[in-house]
Amino acid sequence: MSREPNVIYVGRKPPMNYVLGILTSFSGSNAKVTLKARGQAITTAVDAVEITRHRSMKDLSIGKIAMGTEEMPLREGENRARMVSTMEITLILQ
Amino acid sequence: MSREPNVIYVGRKPPMNYVLGILTSFSGSNAKVTLKARGQAITTAVDAVEITRHRSMKDLSIGKIAMGTEEMPLREGENRARMVSTMEITLILQ
Repeated sequence: MSREPNVIYVGRKPPMNYVLGILTSFSGSNAKVTLKARGQAITTAVDAVEITRHRSMKDLSIGKIAMGTEEMPLREGENRARMVSTMEITLILQ
Repeated sequence: MSREPNVIYVGRKPPMNYVLGILTSFSGSNAKVTLKARGQAITTAVDAVEITRHRSMKDLSIGKIAMGTEEMPLREGENRARMVSTMEITLILQ
């Protein structure tokens, strides 16, 4: 019953890495995949979704898009919490 | 009958500039404001929305979020079109 995970955390890698993650996840019997990103990686997440839709999976539709704010842990020398925007994009295979 | 524009193009300025734009637009009798951004400015648009919601306008809700892809004009030395992701976020004052 093992399945590919249906949550993909988008970070600093190039968008194509996450495109592969999306394709792998859908090939593992998931009907829904959620991308989670924060800060500058939000753009990478949107790029990955757009590349997947245009090049590979034309029957992919975008479900819920949620945005939010998270507090980042303090780093040395910081005396104020840093807030960072987050986005979750759910993809649905029709 | 002049109104503040209800489309805000998000570019390379800091998010607070666009927060001011959102507030100004809503104060000009608009009930809806749409932010349009592409590339790295997508993150700035999300930041501006989150800052506005958390600091100023708690009764602001997020309507439609649309994403897409645009072809950028060729620049000197480029021989392939560059594609860039776009995002439109519509804000609704309840």
